[in-house]
Amino acid sequence: MNDDRQAVGLVGLGAMGRGVAANLLKKGFEVVGYDVRPEAGEWLREQGGRAAPDLTSLAGETGVVVSFVVDARQTEAVLYGEGGLAGRLARGSVFVACSTMPPAYVRELGPRLSADGVALIDAPVTGGAVGAARGSLTVMGAGEPDAFERVRPVLQAFGARVYHLGDAPGAGAQMKVINQLLCGVHLAAAGEALALAKRQGLPLDLTLEILGSGAGASWMLGDRGPRMIAGRHDEVTSAVDIFVKDLSLVLDATRESRFPAGLAHAAYLAFLDTTARGLGALDDSAVIRHYELPEPKRD
Amino acid sequence: MNDDRQAVGLVGLGAMGRGVAANLLKKGFEVVGYDVRPEAGEWLREQGGRAAPDLTSLAGETGVVVSFVVDARQTEAVLYGEGGLAGRLARGSVFVACSTMPPAYVRELGPRLSADGVALIDAPVTGGAVGAARGSLTVMGAGEPDAFERVRPVLQAFGARVYHLGDAPGAGAQMKVINQLLCGVHLAAAGEALALAKRQGLPLDLTLEILGSGAGASWMLGDRGPRMIAGRHDEVTSAVDIFVKDLSLVLDATRESRFPAGLAHAAYLAFLDTTARGLGALDDSAVIRHYELPEPKRD
Repeated sequence: MNDDRQAVGLVGLGAMGRGVAANLLKKGFEVVGYDVRPEAGEWLREQGGRAAPDLTSLAGETGVVVSFVVDARQTEAVLYGEGGLAGRLARGSVFVACSTMPPAYVRELGPRLSADGVALIDAPVTGGAVGAARGSLTVMGAGEPDAFERVRPVLQAFGARVYHLGDAPGAGAQMKVINQLLCGVHLAAAGEALALAKRQGLPLDLTLEILGSGAGASWMLGDRGPRMIAGRHDEVTSAVDIFVKDLSLVLDATRESRFPAGLAHAAYLAFLDTTARGLGALDDSAVIRHYELPEPKRD
Repeated sequence: MNDDRQAVGLVGLGAMGRGVAANLLKKGFEVVGYDVRPEAGEWLREQGGRAAPDLTSLAGETGVVVSFVVDARQTEAVLYGEGGLAGRLARGSVFVACSTMPPAYVRELGPRLSADGVALIDAPVTGGAVGAARGSLTVMGAGEPDAFERVRPVLQAFGARVYHLGDAPGAGAQMKVINQLLCGVHLAAAGEALALAKRQGLPLDLTLEILGSGAGASWMLGDRGPRMIAGRHDEVTSAVDIFVKDLSLVLDATRESRFPAGLAHAAYLAFLDTTARGLGALDDSAVIRHYELPEPKRD
């Protein structure tokens, strides 16, 4: 696939999609992209890709579409909305769904697409916008083995680790939900620890350095911690609202599995409160502002 | 200090203390140790150190005592219990307190010791038994600068990163409490994620590999995760009960600071429940058993 430079379709050119596009182009793939925001198409052209004017024309140019839209609602619109891909993709095409979505939705999507001769590869990722830019994402894949092998070179262009977790779509989504449990808890915990240090008058830069150097280290602390202590939440790589959504999927999963997950619920409340304070569109490092309090009254 | 091979006193030869002893000996320090368990003294002699028969004789052999006992109660006993070090250490000695203790206790301990001419260096560590064995601990130090510089070579023998956070003992203890907030939350979160994956039928070894490779990674997941999925909790590097204690200190700190820390409380409950199930003496990776449930009833 790399050799004959067959175009890869890419839907959704946000922070994640752009990193993926850049890596596909770097590895020699032709990329034809689509995003509802015209400036994203402009960006793609500057990188050496092509921007499709709509999904119909994208469907005519490729047999492999990678989707990096936000969620299941947008995925549904890309496929079955007006002018969507379903029924327009050639039989034998593969749709690679990289968004974080409810496992039940993904399980149902497989048969719906296969009715039109399209194979679904369930392929959510972890590693953040940083990992997308570096091509170092972890891909949690599932789906019919032949289709999976066909798109493996595409997945490897942006994923340093590509896993095949099962033959039926859904296992990738399940794994991603569990991954988001950890990410959400670690991110809120970083905010909780740094805000407590601030309230106790400890030097924040040193606190971050110390916490990140020992047994308290996490990927999230290292990545989001500097933005937390700088109070820089305007440069959004992933918004607070994304974690409200992702942790909702975690809570759904724990309810379905009859699994009382106290930490996931505590983290969800921290993000929900941050959104309730009107900060949902800010960078998710803004979850530290859940812990923003008036000065304690001294006796 | 390294050159004239002045003996370093070391009280408490558990998992942490033994790693510290090994690194002190490796760096050329003479070590005279004491532990209430005679077999620990035996171990120290085999490593090339000397075992003091009691604290009185230890006090006669050294002007620098490093304490790696479990908590404030044991520290109090080492110093002010029957036959304790206080009043027996020569004036000008330095007592280095590495245990995790309430900051308020540490703040009061400074003046009590200085009444006998002994300087207190507050020096809790992070990095676990693994870090102690490797000499790669992070040391969160505080105390009078001259005394701190005097013991810096000792701290550097087992600490890869040695911080001086303030001139009064207590800042180290504060930082350690915040560090334990993160450690406790990350450890319980690792249990929550892996137990949920198990309940959903996902392959656990692959789950651990995937979660540890992306944005969900934490030091605790990497260190305790393998023991969690293997169900190996008999080899105790740090017990469940230690986290019940450490997270109690965290809850105390959040109450004193009027700081509502939801995640710390959720983690505390997971450890407390694990202890309530009779598992408090097991390795802290046993917190995953808080999430051990009967099979869900299928409709």
